[in-house]
Amino acid sequence: MKLASLRNGTRDGRLVLVSRDLTRFTDASFLAPTLQAALDDWRRIAPHLATLGESLEHGAVPTERFHEHSALSPLPRAYQWADGSAYVNHVELVRKSRNSEMPASFWSDPLMYQGGSDSFLAPRDPITMADEAWGIDMEGEIAVVVDDVPAGATAEQARDAIRLLMLVNDVSLRNLTAPELAKGFGFFQSKPSSAFSPVAVTPDELGEAWDGGKVHLPLSVDLNGKPFGRADAGVDMVFDFPALVAHAARTRPLVAGSIIGSGTVSNKLDGGPGKPIAHGGAGYSCIAEMRVVETILNGAPATPFLRYGDTVRIEMKDRAGHSVFGAIEQTVGRPQAEE
Amino acid sequence: MKLASLRNGTRDGRLVLVSRDLTRFTDASFLAPTLQAALDDWRRIAPHLATLGESLEHGAVPTERFHEHSALSPLPRAYQWADGSAYVNHVELVRKSRNSEMPASFWSDPLMYQGGSDSFLAPRDPITMADEAWGIDMEGEIAVVVDDVPAGATAEQARDAIRLLMLVNDVSLRNLTAPELAKGFGFFQSKPSSAFSPVAVTPDELGEAWDGGKVHLPLSVDLNGKPFGRADAGVDMVFDFPALVAHAARTRPLVAGSIIGSGTVSNKLDGGPGKPIAHGGAGYSCIAEMRVVETILNGAPATPFLRYGDTVRIEMKDRAGHSVFGAIEQTVGRPQAEE
Repeated sequence: MKLASLRNGTRDGRLVLVSRDLTRFTDASFLAPTLQAALDDWRRIAPHLATLGESLEHGAVPTERFHEHSALSPLPRAYQWADGSAYVNHVELVRKSRNSEMPASFWSDPLMYQGGSDSFLAPRDPITMADEAWGIDMEGEIAVVVDDVPAGATAEQARDAIRLLMLVNDVSLRNLTAPELAKGFGFFQSKPSSAFSPVAVTPDELGEAWDGGKVHLPLSVDLNGKPFGRADAGVDMVFDFPALVAHAARTRPLVAGSIIGSGTVSNKLDGGPGKPIAHGGAGYSCIAEMRVVETILNGAPATPFLRYGDTVRIEMKDRAGHSVFGAIEQTVGRPQAEE
Repeated sequence: MKLASLRNGTRDGRLVLVSRDLTRFTDASFLAPTLQAALDDWRRIAPHLATLGESLEHGAVPTERFHEHSALSPLPRAYQWADGSAYVNHVELVRKSRNSEMPASFWSDPLMYQGGSDSFLAPRDPITMADEAWGIDMEGEIAVVVDDVPAGATAEQARDAIRLLMLVNDVSLRNLTAPELAKGFGFFQSKPSSAFSPVAVTPDELGEAWDGGKVHLPLSVDLNGKPFGRADAGVDMVFDFPALVAHAARTRPLVAGSIIGSGTVSNKLDGGPGKPIAHGGAGYSCIAEMRVVETILNGAPATPFLRYGDTVRIEMKDRAGHSVFGAIEQTVGRPQAEE
């Protein structure tokens, strides 16, 4: 099934089921008013949603045209957003640009940061930042939504708890990162509100592209209408989702609706740093990584961070070329003066 | 008013109003089913809650006996839990024990970490940890709950958005902290589920002890029935709550129901490190700080972290000796084997 939360003037939106081809939706709010409500009681509600989803595909229920720009993030606010950094290549590259050695433990012990989950942007919302000089960047990622996970869960338990997958734009403020991390308490102001894809999908919607741990499809990241990244999410993911979920649940439970992210999708091609798409590579899922490669190759970064008016598009297509999750498409903007 | 969420088999509990003396409650779920629902629509619902609260005090509505152990945390799960470290003395002491200089900027730029908010413990729940060797510690703190706060809010806007206050036990796993912080991404496994006081109170309940920014009362922290800390929360709080809330909202909005914590309450008495209560001092709100002082004075810590069976009690009494928020009282326990 594909699930979306449509704008209806409430904080959590209205739960709808979306057709596999993303063209139609049918109301599902009579089963659960919101996606969080469905996740709170998934074992009871999911079978009814599945039945409704089949009716939707067969044209047996009333439908309306689905517009991606009418969707909020599937969970417009969530109780938990923990983001891993499973593509260790990304971390290694960033460290290399700072001439800082990456600890070997990073290949065996997942990096994860606690994100803020109270105010996610809708997938077509502008990225509104008061200062362009903060170094605004996108991070194209995949995330899973889990059911209740007990503290100390094994990776196998974690795997069984995965209910939904989404795409993420984990907006980052690069020029706030270094001073913030230097304080030792992790990210806060440097990780403002993230945006998620218009629909969240159950794992079966991915078919063979989902192996229970990773998504084996390229993640499309476009910048101002041009291809910027096509990194394969199934390649170079050092920690799969069950490992990330188990890491998050080591010392505490996770409640239903918790979102666990992959970190920036990043491929390490031919043993060297990833190449830009213009040079035949898979490109990048964030600007920072391209700047790192530029720094390694040329001594200095050339690609600027996002500026007012720049547009980022993040999407994933299946092998047949159909969008799986709909597209995150966001333009960077200035805050509007209050009336 | 004083608000609590009583256990009723649901994830968020049932909203009730509690009498000022914490002995009686009356149902408030007909106004809003949960505290989050009330906060989502505070301007509309708060006046009705206030009227009901007056009726409760005057015995004009049906009441039942209030038992603190029947209460969940006021927000059993929340969308945002950001914890400051406003008592910089605490940070300076911890650094000193490591022979590490604290940056001067820590006196002007608030430290804050992003906490996990999906699974708070009830105020009388055990602190269940799989391994005593993790270095289990309490942190006695105060927190505010805010209404919607726009990104870039001023401290004055932040002050106006404060709706409720609570106490917190920010459970910490000290022996996981150093390796986790060394990874550079902040706390995660070292900050498991926190617990909050049985009731959340509106600022007016504090009378003159609330000056709009700080709470001028001592925080009682007892360990195994003996006084451990009596630090005054109004003393040595370098950043007040409006400053902490504004810091949290610098690059993103906060949604209604977001919780912002003070960090461990800590007094720096007589220009030196705080003294234990047994030596006439104000004591400590966490064990780590006592161990730091022991290390500074004697070269090594003497007080162990919490062990299975240890009990922590955190409470705040007004000038007349009445408990304001009820007590957090938690015993450390082993996970029970699953059936």
